[in-house]
Amino acid sequence: MSDVNAAASGPAPFCLAVDAMGGDHAPDIVLAGLELAADRHPGTRVLLLGDEALLRSQLPRYPRAASMCEIRHAPSAISMEMKPTAALRLRDSSLRMAIDAVATGEAGGVVSAGNSGAMLALAKIVIKTLPGISRPAMAAVNPSARGDVVMLDLGANIACDSRNLVEFAVMGEAFAKAVLGLPSPRIGLLNVGVEELKGDERLREAAEMLRDSALSEQFHGFVEGHDITAGTTDVVVTDGFTGNIALKTGEGALKLASLLLRRVFRTNFLTKLGYLLVRPGLERMREWIDPRRYNGAVFVGLNGIVVKSHGGADAESFAAAIDVAMDAVTHGINEKIRTRLDQISAFSANGEEERATASSMAI
Amino acid sequence: MSDVNAAASGPAPFCLAVDAMGGDHAPDIVLAGLELAADRHPGTRVLLLGDEALLRSQLPRYPRAASMCEIRHAPSAISMEMKPTAALRLRDSSLRMAIDAVATGEAGGVVSAGNSGAMLALAKIVIKTLPGISRPAMAAVNPSARGDVVMLDLGANIACDSRNLVEFAVMGEAFAKAVLGLPSPRIGLLNVGVEELKGDERLREAAEMLRDSALSEQFHGFVEGHDITAGTTDVVVTDGFTGNIALKTGEGALKLASLLLRRVFRTNFLTKLGYLLVRPGLERMREWIDPRRYNGAVFVGLNGIVVKSHGGADAESFAAAIDVAMDAVTHGINEKIRTRLDQISAFSANGEEERATASSMAI
Repeated sequence: MSDVNAAASGPAPFCLAVDAMGGDHAPDIVLAGLELAADRHPGTRVLLLGDEALLRSQLPRYPRAASMCEIRHAPSAISMEMKPTAALRLRDSSLRMAIDAVATGEAGGVVSAGNSGAMLALAKIVIKTLPGISRPAMAAVNPSARGDVVMLDLGANIACDSRNLVEFAVMGEAFAKAVLGLPSPRIGLLNVGVEELKGDERLREAAEMLRDSALSEQFHGFVEGHDITAGTTDVVVTDGFTGNIALKTGEGALKLASLLLRRVFRTNFLTKLGYLLVRPGLERMREWIDPRRYNGAVFVGLNGIVVKSHGGADAESFAAAIDVAMDAVTHGINEKIRTRLDQISAFSANGEEERATASSMAI
Repeated sequence: MSDVNAAASGPAPFCLAVDAMGGDHAPDIVLAGLELAADRHPGTRVLLLGDEALLRSQLPRYPRAASMCEIRHAPSAISMEMKPTAALRLRDSSLRMAIDAVATGEAGGVVSAGNSGAMLALAKIVIKTLPGISRPAMAAVNPSARGDVVMLDLGANIACDSRNLVEFAVMGEAFAKAVLGLPSPRIGLLNVGVEELKGDERLREAAEMLRDSALSEQFHGFVEGHDITAGTTDVVVTDGFTGNIALKTGEGALKLASLLLRRVFRTNFLTKLGYLLVRPGLERMREWIDPRRYNGAVFVGLNGIVVKSHGGADAESFAAAIDVAMDAVTHGINEKIRTRLDQISAFSANGEEERATASSMAI
């Protein structure tokens, strides 16, 4: 723990900048989460932004986090209720300073359990979007019968056009490669049916653009709501309104199943005995669908990794958000997005050239 | 079983007209479903449309269905793949003749497990929408932690404006009263957050209209995806795109839970023993969330009850669709919609008068 920026082995001195003051249980949960994550990412350096006196008094209780973190004092903090416009004016908040560290290249990414609206607004203005991306999206991993599935946008953009959806597909593919380690992720576009004529113009146009793009081989076509948990594709692309509702509806349904299951096991002595017999398997099942394991939504499409943890996250789920951010930084999600965008624009340019040639030949 | 229309006690000679030829397993499943439903609705009369020779040969195997049904010959049938435009031209199909029976007042409602697109198109043109309703919606019952929840629109209208959403709220309330028997159903508008400023203009406008309407006391405000299965409100209103995706995402998540649970119980001898101990409770749980129990989506807002069963329905789930249709007919869902629409227009007229008075007073 030193106040001098020691250059790390990576391109940025710090892998991550962490907002120690964001979320319902800050800074305790943040530090406890870092303590858990430290084991899984040895040698990583983290810049910790927040109330220096408070952090210096608490950090010694988390020795592995302490050995990974450098504290930098942030005089103020953004509350969960603060409007984005007010948050933008507060230049010395822990969240702002963490985002600044990404903008200056001092850190590869930022993690906060704080105010999402403020985080997205600050990130867009301070870090800015990647060239070729018109709007960042919120992406996260969801459970399915066949393994993890990336879904985006989860609420950053209420209304999206076909171009946005194509960009989300590019970002989702890069996310699945970097965070899930899939070599060639399959991409689905969420719709009310799988037939080509289903949905609105915007979806049909996006599907056509994807079929004609460098992503064509990985584009599966339209998928439906039940395909998310079936794991039909590795990436599910949708607008932020639908994605937010699908995410919460799925989580709600799993919560209902676990509530009903609890009731079943608590009925009488025999069912309690039954519970004891299946407990190890149930715990694996719970872990499989545990929303805590899936904590950490990434705002993709920015010039740096921006990860939002649930405000009410516990230590384990905050650690999951740290994991996602570290995977995204170390596996170069943004380089993957850039490469794909270059291919797509080269592809479209070729396509246009071909079409131009074809039409001139027709004349 | 007679070829002469015997007048029943209700306003229409037949409670329902049933398309015997629709669905993947017609007519067997249709007849088996009617057999199950007959027990629960003694004395009800059903008009059965389809291939007369085939039905006359099969029906005797279902004695209770036979005593309830009158067969009427329909020379043709609409396949699952037929486009709505082609279906409209086929005037002697079993589905068309069943819908005609509703239009002429011979039957209170129609049930089919056939082609949904053809069904909606035929119903709109032949039966027509209720006065004051601009677009029919697809409504169905879903499981929640607190009991059954009505959700609509489930896919009849991909794009909706605020006026459509308000009409859906009126129809959803009538559905919850007639089918679920709730005296004063609570209504929620599906959104990405519960705060007044969340979502798009269309949603904020619909919320404002509902707050100012005769439904204001029952209007809970915005609800989120997880509120559907939490049972926060009795009715969840949304556009057909979002509703279709939320419905299928929730079903998919419950399917994932039951798949994982099966794996847990099948692990070894002890877990199999555990399964035997909790089986009765698990069966109750399965029944609680069983999609078959929730089969039967109603196209509400038409001059008659139009119920669509899943194409792949089994006998039990087809019987559930019959139940929904009979409840909707016998408890007068359309009268409830009419009454509420009258109140709303009277209410708006009063409101405008008040506002006019208020503004003239200000001058």
